[in-house]
Amino acid sequence: MNASTRDVFTIMKPDLERVEDVLVTAASIDYPIVNTMLHAIVSGGGKRLRPVLLLLAAKAFGTFNERAVDVAAGVELLHTASLVHDDSIDKAALRRGNPTLNTELSTGAVILIGDYLFAQSAILAARPENPRVMVIFATTLAEICDGQIRETLEAHRLDQSMAEYEVRIFGKTAALFAGAAEMGAVLGGGSDEQVANLRQIGTDLGMAFQVIDDVLDLRESSETIGKPAGNDLRQGVVTVPVMSFIANLPADAPQRALIERIVAGDETNDQTIDALVQEIRNSGALVEAERIAQGYVASARARVELVPDEDTRDSLNQLLDLATIRSV
Amino acid sequence: MNASTRDVFTIMKPDLERVEDVLVTAASIDYPIVNTMLHAIVSGGGKRLRPVLLLLAAKAFGTFNERAVDVAAGVELLHTASLVHDDSIDKAALRRGNPTLNTELSTGAVILIGDYLFAQSAILAARPENPRVMVIFATTLAEICDGQIRETLEAHRLDQSMAEYEVRIFGKTAALFAGAAEMGAVLGGGSDEQVANLRQIGTDLGMAFQVIDDVLDLRESSETIGKPAGNDLRQGVVTVPVMSFIANLPADAPQRALIERIVAGDETNDQTIDALVQEIRNSGALVEAERIAQGYVASARARVELVPDEDTRDSLNQLLDLATIRSV
Repeated sequence: MNASTRDVFTIMKPDLERVEDVLVTAASIDYPIVNTMLHAIVSGGGKRLRPVLLLLAAKAFGTFNERAVDVAAGVELLHTASLVHDDSIDKAALRRGNPTLNTELSTGAVILIGDYLFAQSAILAARPENPRVMVIFATTLAEICDGQIRETLEAHRLDQSMAEYEVRIFGKTAALFAGAAEMGAVLGGGSDEQVANLRQIGTDLGMAFQVIDDVLDLRESSETIGKPAGNDLRQGVVTVPVMSFIANLPADAPQRALIERIVAGDETNDQTIDALVQEIRNSGALVEAERIAQGYVASARARVELVPDEDTRDSLNQLLDLATIRSV
Repeated sequence: MNASTRDVFTIMKPDLERVEDVLVTAASIDYPIVNTMLHAIVSGGGKRLRPVLLLLAAKAFGTFNERAVDVAAGVELLHTASLVHDDSIDKAALRRGNPTLNTELSTGAVILIGDYLFAQSAILAARPENPRVMVIFATTLAEICDGQIRETLEAHRLDQSMAEYEVRIFGKTAALFAGAAEMGAVLGGGSDEQVANLRQIGTDLGMAFQVIDDVLDLRESSETIGKPAGNDLRQGVVTVPVMSFIANLPADAPQRALIERIVAGDETNDQTIDALVQEIRNSGALVEAERIAQGYVASARARVELVPDEDTRDSLNQLLDLATIRSV
């Protein structure tokens, strides 16, 4: 960010406040206890990268469609709904420092509340009454589910290819960034070419984000990320740093069988897993994964150059910085 | 049905076959085992009342929009998605005689596959690129979730009012009938008044259907309905026949406390519950509930008279007959 560049989150603050209002209203439900928890979950949430990306794309072509605020809230709510189901599946007790719905409600109720949030997110996305936006929204939801199903059914395989990993993290994370950027560009009146360009920027940003997430899961201490280092591995999910680590092992290395036992849930000894995580950190596998993330960022930066508006270019580049330089 | 009336399912057969094709394609997924089970679930399903209702409404005003076939499949798939989550919540092993996904997959995978089907149903509903249809579809999904949440959080209360029961079964069942009829009428080019009329016919049909379902749950033998008689009660769900039964009990009747224990899961003795079910059957509570269902049907029949096309009127009346005279 050069001296004249304003921080993207400062620029977007007024819009994001409107997104928050829409979010809290949409995530309201008749049951006081559930309502309080839902508001905590919805309000407790992160940097709002997906709404920011959508709004940036919606402002990139001159005319701002005010209804983009609703769709930005819809995208964030879709993300939240997906986290509610994830937490239910993982039986997680905490999310972003807040107790999850699991701590107070039956699994059945949590599933239904996730469904309810999906429905509310679709209602928000339908508000501009733009058929193309609705198609993108529904397709994005399907891509997210596909990614999640792949993670559940396939992520434990050690012999997966880089292509399979990419398909999986596209669905899990990049699809919603791609959809957010695309919907924003459609609402902002971008040409087909501009819409496709924004979508690809969203895809690359999302891919970089997920790869770095997978790196942080192994690199950061348990205290920093609020879950044990190597949590993915412990949950049976093989990510790209682990794939790189395995690829560079000698054929007869015992770590291969160890990782197989860990992802199968047959090896749960914390010291053993901690030692393996340390070995992965020392192996260069994290650096190799970061290089992959940088590749996505570089591809996105080239595309950002094609965006006509200079302020939007600056803001998009800031999001790309954030994808890779963040520590958590 | 008079002598000149053709059976609605015979009339709709060619359209329903197209709906089946769309359904099977939409419910396809990359994983062979899941795919086989999904196809069995999607293909094994009932009378397709919701698609039939949507298609009838779409044909009621002269011009048939071919895209209604996609939305009809979307409505059925939304129903299927909702059943997949229900079965996951209830840990059911069978649905319509087919093994549920629960028998082969983890709860997490089943939740995600339900989500995936929701997404596919939204994609089908988005196909006609009709903004009004998308809003109805998303709103309907929210209503269904609201009904399911109410059933989970509130249905066990013995002190619920008829109004609360109606709100609950509207969401659980009638909302999708209402939405199907409304979307069909919109696609068929009905006036606002005609669309509202069709929506109300759908609502009444759905309400009648659910009340009769609740009666059948208590009236039919375990063999006929494929689950124990009084299954709702055993699951902690208080329905209108049970509410009528309680309302007609003397203040100090021991059955009240017994029902409380059953819905709380504290009384699970089969003979005790069977005896109570028999007592409810003998009490006139089922007849009282059937009278409520007949009230909805009568309201719908009056509205059917307002539909201009005679064949559509005949067909809608056949669906209304079906709602109340069916045994299962």
